[in-house]
Amino acid sequence: MKEHTNKRFEDELNELKNKILAMGGLVEKATRRSINSLVKHDAKRAHKVIERDHAINALEVEIDEMTRTMLALRQPAASDLRLIMTTIKVVTDLERMGDLAEGIAEYMLQTEEHPVIQISSLESLADHVLQQVNDALDAFARRDLVEALACIEKDKKIDAEFKSMQREYLTYMMEDPRQITAGLLSTNIARNLERIGDHAVNIAEMVIYMIKGHDIRHVDHETAAAIVSGRLNEGV
Amino acid sequence: MKEHTNKRFEDELNELKNKILAMGGLVEKATRRSINSLVKHDAKRAHKVIERDHAINALEVEIDEMTRTMLALRQPAASDLRLIMTTIKVVTDLERMGDLAEGIAEYMLQTEEHPVIQISSLESLADHVLQQVNDALDAFARRDLVEALACIEKDKKIDAEFKSMQREYLTYMMEDPRQITAGLLSTNIARNLERIGDHAVNIAEMVIYMIKGHDIRHVDHETAAAIVSGRLNEGV
Repeated sequence: MKEHTNKRFEDELNELKNKILAMGGLVEKATRRSINSLVKHDAKRAHKVIERDHAINALEVEIDEMTRTMLALRQPAASDLRLIMTTIKVVTDLERMGDLAEGIAEYMLQTEEHPVIQISSLESLADHVLQQVNDALDAFARRDLVEALACIEKDKKIDAEFKSMQREYLTYMMEDPRQITAGLLSTNIARNLERIGDHAVNIAEMVIYMIKGHDIRHVDHETAAAIVSGRLNEGV
Repeated sequence: MKEHTNKRFEDELNELKNKILAMGGLVEKATRRSINSLVKHDAKRAHKVIERDHAINALEVEIDEMTRTMLALRQPAASDLRLIMTTIKVVTDLERMGDLAEGIAEYMLQTEEHPVIQISSLESLADHVLQQVNDALDAFARRDLVEALACIEKDKKIDAEFKSMQREYLTYMMEDPRQITAGLLSTNIARNLERIGDHAVNIAEMVIYMIKGHDIRHVDHETAAAIVSGRLNEGV
C-alpha cells in the first residue's frame, strides 16, 4: 500500500487524523461536562461548555482548510482520498455534536427553576452515548471495523432508551401540569444526547467507507455487517 | 477563469450541479408535501413522503461517489475544487433535510388522535422555511451572493417564530393537560421545520465559500455581510 511515497504527505495525513481526534476529544469533554453540570447543579461548568464551543468551531474551519489544501496540492488517490473525504464529512458531524453539547449546557441553565426529571436516566443515557462516540473515534483512529460496527449496533438500544424516557416524561407531565416545563427540558436534553449518538453513527459509517470503500449509509444492517465481515466484495 | 480547459470536466461539473439541484427539488417537494398532508389530513401524502425518502438517499450516495471520482481523476483546483468541497457538504445537509421532512410525515400519522395546535402557524412557518430553502438552492444554482445572504438573514426571524410557537404550545399544554400530546407533536413538527431552515443556512454559507473562498460559518453577521459585499478581501 505505497500509494503515497511522499513523506511530507504522510505527515500531513497523520496531522489531519490527529486534528480530527483532538476535535473528537473536545466534543467528548463538552458532552460529559454538560451532563456533569446537570448532575452537580453547577452552572459554572455549563458556562464553560458554552464558552469553549468556539474551539470546536475553530477546528472545523482549520480541518476543512487543511483538506482543501491537501486536495489541491497532493492529488490523493484511493485510500488516501477516502480518508480525506471521510474527514470532510466527519468534521461536520463533530461540529454539530459540539453544538448539541452546548445546547445541553444551555438547557442546564434553565433547570434551576425547573429541575430535570430523574437525572439518573439522563446520566445513564449520556454514558451510553459517550460510549458510542468513543467507539466511533476509536474506530477512526485505529481503522477498526469491529468498533465501527459496535457503534452502529448500539444505536437501536439508545433509540429505545430515548423513546422510553420520552414516554416517562409524558406521564409526569400528564399527572402534574406543573411538571410540564421540567418534562420538556428533560426531553430536550435527552433528544440532544440521542442526536449526538446519531452523529457518532454517521462517523462510524464513514469510517467503514474509509476502510472498505463501501458506502453503507443507506443499506440495511445485515448487508452492512456482511460488508464489514468481508463476505461481500463488490458494490452495494 | 479558464481553470478547466477540459470540456468533459466542465460537463461533469454541470452534471454535479444539476444533481444537487434535483436533490434540492426533492427535498422541497418532501417538505411541502409533509405539511400539506397535515393541512389536508391526508395520510396518503404522508406515506408518500416516507416512501420517497429513498430517492433522496440514493442521490446522496450517487453524488458523493461522483465527487470522489472527479477528485481522483480530474485533480480540480481553485474554484472547481471549492465547488466540489461545497457539494460534499451540501449533499449531507440535503439528506438530513429529507429525513426531517420524513419525520414531519411520521408525526402527521400520529395527529389523527391528536390534531396539531393551530395548523395555520405551522403552515406559515413552513412557508418561511421553504422560502429559505429556495433562497439557498437559487444561490447555489446562480452563484448568487445576495440570495445566499438573504437565506442567512431570514434565520433570525424564523428562530423567533419557532420560539414564539413553542411558548404558545406550552400555554395550551398548561391550560389543558389533555392537550399535552398535541402540544408535543406540534412542537416537534415546528422544530423539524426550523432545523430544515438551519440546514438551508449551512448551504448558503457553503455557497458563499464556493463563490468567495471565505469560510464565514463561524463569523458574526456583520463580518459575513462585509465579505459578501466585497469590502473585505483577505482571510477571516
